[in-house]
Amino acid sequence: MTKTFRRKLDFKAGRVDMSHGAGGRAMAELISSIFKDAFGNELLEQGNDQASFPTPSGGRMVMTTDGYVVSPIFFPGGDIGSLAVHGTVNDLAMAGAKPLYLSASYIIEEGFPLGDLKRIADSMGAAAKAAGVMIVTGDTKVVERGKADGVFISTAGVGVVPDGINLSGDRARPGDKVIVSGSMGDHGVAIMSSRENLTFETEILSDSAALNGLVDAMVAAAGPHLRLMRDPTRGGLAATLNELAHQSGVGFRIVEDHIPIKRQVAAACELLGLDPLNVANEGKLVAVVAAEAAEGLLAAMRSHPLGAEAAIIGEAVEDDQRFVQMTTGFGGGRIVDWLAGEQLPRIC
Amino acid sequence: MTKTFRRKLDFKAGRVDMSHGAGGRAMAELISSIFKDAFGNELLEQGNDQASFPTPSGGRMVMTTDGYVVSPIFFPGGDIGSLAVHGTVNDLAMAGAKPLYLSASYIIEEGFPLGDLKRIADSMGAAAKAAGVMIVTGDTKVVERGKADGVFISTAGVGVVPDGINLSGDRARPGDKVIVSGSMGDHGVAIMSSRENLTFETEILSDSAALNGLVDAMVAAAGPHLRLMRDPTRGGLAATLNELAHQSGVGFRIVEDHIPIKRQVAAACELLGLDPLNVANEGKLVAVVAAEAAEGLLAAMRSHPLGAEAAIIGEAVEDDQRFVQMTTGFGGGRIVDWLAGEQLPRIC
Ligand SMILES: Nc1ncnc2c1ncn2[C@@H]1O[C@H](COP(=O)(O)OP(=O)(O)OP(=O)(O)O)[C@@H](O)[C@H]1O
Ligand SMILES: Nc1ncnc2c1ncn2[C@@H]1O[C@H](COP(=O)(O)OP(=O)(O)OP(=O)(O)O)[C@@H](O)[C@H]1O
Ligand SMILES: [Mg+2]
Ligand SMILES: [Mg+2]
Ligand SMILES: [Mg+2]
Ligand SMILES: [Mg+2]
Ligand SMILES: [Mg+2]
Ligand SMILES: [Mg+2]
Repeated sequence: MTKTFRRKLDFKAGRVDMSHGAGGRAMAELISSIFKDAFGNELLEQGNDQASFPTPSGGRMVMTTDGYVVSPIFFPGGDIGSLAVHGTVNDLAMAGAKPLYLSASYIIEEGFPLGDLKRIADSMGAAAKAAGVMIVTGDTKVVERGKADGVFISTAGVGVVPDGINLSGDRARPGDKVIVSGSMGDHGVAIMSSRENLTFETEILSDSAALNGLVDAMVAAAGPHLRLMRDPTRGGLAATLNELAHQSGVGFRIVEDHIPIKRQVAAACELLGLDPLNVANEGKLVAVVAAEAAEGLLAAMRSHPLGAEAAIIGEAVEDDQRFVQMTTGFGGGRIVDWLAGEQLPRIC
Repeated sequence: MTKTFRRKLDFKAGRVDMSHGAGGRAMAELISSIFKDAFGNELLEQGNDQASFPTPSGGRMVMTTDGYVVSPIFFPGGDIGSLAVHGTVNDLAMAGAKPLYLSASYIIEEGFPLGDLKRIADSMGAAAKAAGVMIVTGDTKVVERGKADGVFISTAGVGVVPDGINLSGDRARPGDKVIVSGSMGDHGVAIMSSRENLTFETEILSDSAALNGLVDAMVAAAGPHLRLMRDPTRGGLAATLNELAHQSGVGFRIVEDHIPIKRQVAAACELLGLDPLNVANEGKLVAVVAAEAAEGLLAAMRSHPLGAEAAIIGEAVEDDQRFVQMTTGFGGGRIVDWLAGEQLPRIC
């Protein structure tokens, strides 16, 4: 995150509002003005989804954390337990790292059903096993009825970066291609539909999944041509591309018709008044790759189950203003901004 | 934690209650029946306050996590921000490790004052700096008003274990000496007094502090004679000694008159109906050391500011029943059990 986002927060009378957790500009400002200022160090300043550091005995490791407050706790295609593994595994994998160990901090509201807690823990354990990581340490706190909302889970993770891999959000260069691994918006729309009790011909499922297997295939295929990867979670593809534009000091041009979006998801977005580009994904990634390696990478992604619908959606361009511009279906164009305010509360 | 604690939880109709977060037997049962079952792996089974694993490039690292839900958020001697550093640094240090990197996951209630959030983050940053660790990654979630209680922080941490150090809760042997680093009960009593608006001649302050400096001095002094260390947090000294007795398969005999307790803390405990041995500490440790090295270790601890009041309080004994027995001030004896139920909610 660069200084560009800074605006003065009102520390006398200001209060946290839902936009500060929404993955857009307000959150970036809050993180920059409060947390980065207070914790200031070069590793946090890397501004990636994970911090990368040398281990005392050689080699590099990465560390990341996310809190999970999704509502409802059980949703079509997953639950807070599996999500708490996938989200953290993915933030490690986005560095090209092999995720190894997770921690799990549970904050539970008094009165929460033990059966539900077991179901969540079992789901979390199964997701960890499937992703090839171990949950090695944890913590359990209980707060009084009405002081939390069922259960919150914070997961941290560490992983090891293979020698020679060096991915970072500041590495996009003009001419590089932008690839997404599959359809946009499934997770957020699944949550919102279940919250609003919308039903469709076919149920919309969250895409929540661990991407480390796909990432291995990508690293093998593109090697040093791969510049960076990021998972478009809160704030969706729009927020991710804007973040990357600022970090790398480039613009992006993308083509609306090339962005995979499921028909049902597009329809639900219409109904809910959402733009699928702002909606969170939990099993998708955006990759930026040198142009000459793009087709090879795309082919490798498509032969993995989680990248079957991967698509090249655009490219990085020179742009001092770091805009994300999109050619629309009608041949027009528009700026894809990240949302200033709140759109989807408690999505992850 | 051993199978001894297992009791059948009612997964059909049972609900989480405050005792499940209190650091006593009910919490141990919950963790064992739900989380250890679901996540099952050898690292979690180590049963220590941190998990220890080899790094791919050689050497050993440790990882730990804690959630912080303390109420009030600002208390005499600290706040949730400094506590969230000290607690996690200490769980790493108890392995004899050098704490390196922390993550911080914030879950914030809508409407929380920005000024308070800044104060907490600044305190957290200052505590990290003082302890020589870096907060390298974080996350920020906001939930609706009434769905959390101000702010919760989950901190994870990693550290590196120096070659030749091998501390673990299962290493106490009959004849080993038990040392505490200072007075018991200060943190819990500071929180409870401020919650109940009790005032005393001199204010009771939390002992919240990072113990890694003290630990360095201890490792230097006792080397391989040091068997294990643990910080007596939730459940206090009583819970810690009972945990260690089970893990190591020994009993403990301690002497009440040798346990340092501040006069004010003892008085407040009387008033509040608390036993100081059940009360949480956040800047104290319990060490078990081979008898021949005990006096040397004690001297080293006493020359460190955070160990000035260190004392040998007893020893490990052979005991198939793994009891913690205490010679009382009146020359009698009693079993020091850990609490079955809830005593001090939201203490950390
Ligand atoms: N939700 C959980 N999932 C997995 N393991 C857990 C969970 N909660 C606790 N544990 C494990 O249980 C053991 C005891 O945890 P506990 O939180 O009591 O230790 P601590 O952090 O040293 O104490 P405190 O939290 O009071 O500071 C540790 O090995 C911890 O990793
Ligand atoms: N409370 C905080 N303290 C310190 N750093 C933070 C905090 N919250 C976020 N960050 C940092 O800000 C950057 C963006 O965090 P963000 O949570 O948006 O990333 P993400 O985890 O990839 O997205 P999501 O949480 O939606 O999955 C990261 O570098 C992260 O470490
Ligand atoms: Mg994330
Ligand atoms: Mg703990
Ligand atoms: Mg991410
Ligand atoms: Mg702890
Ligand atoms: Mg995050
Ligand atoms: Mg501990």
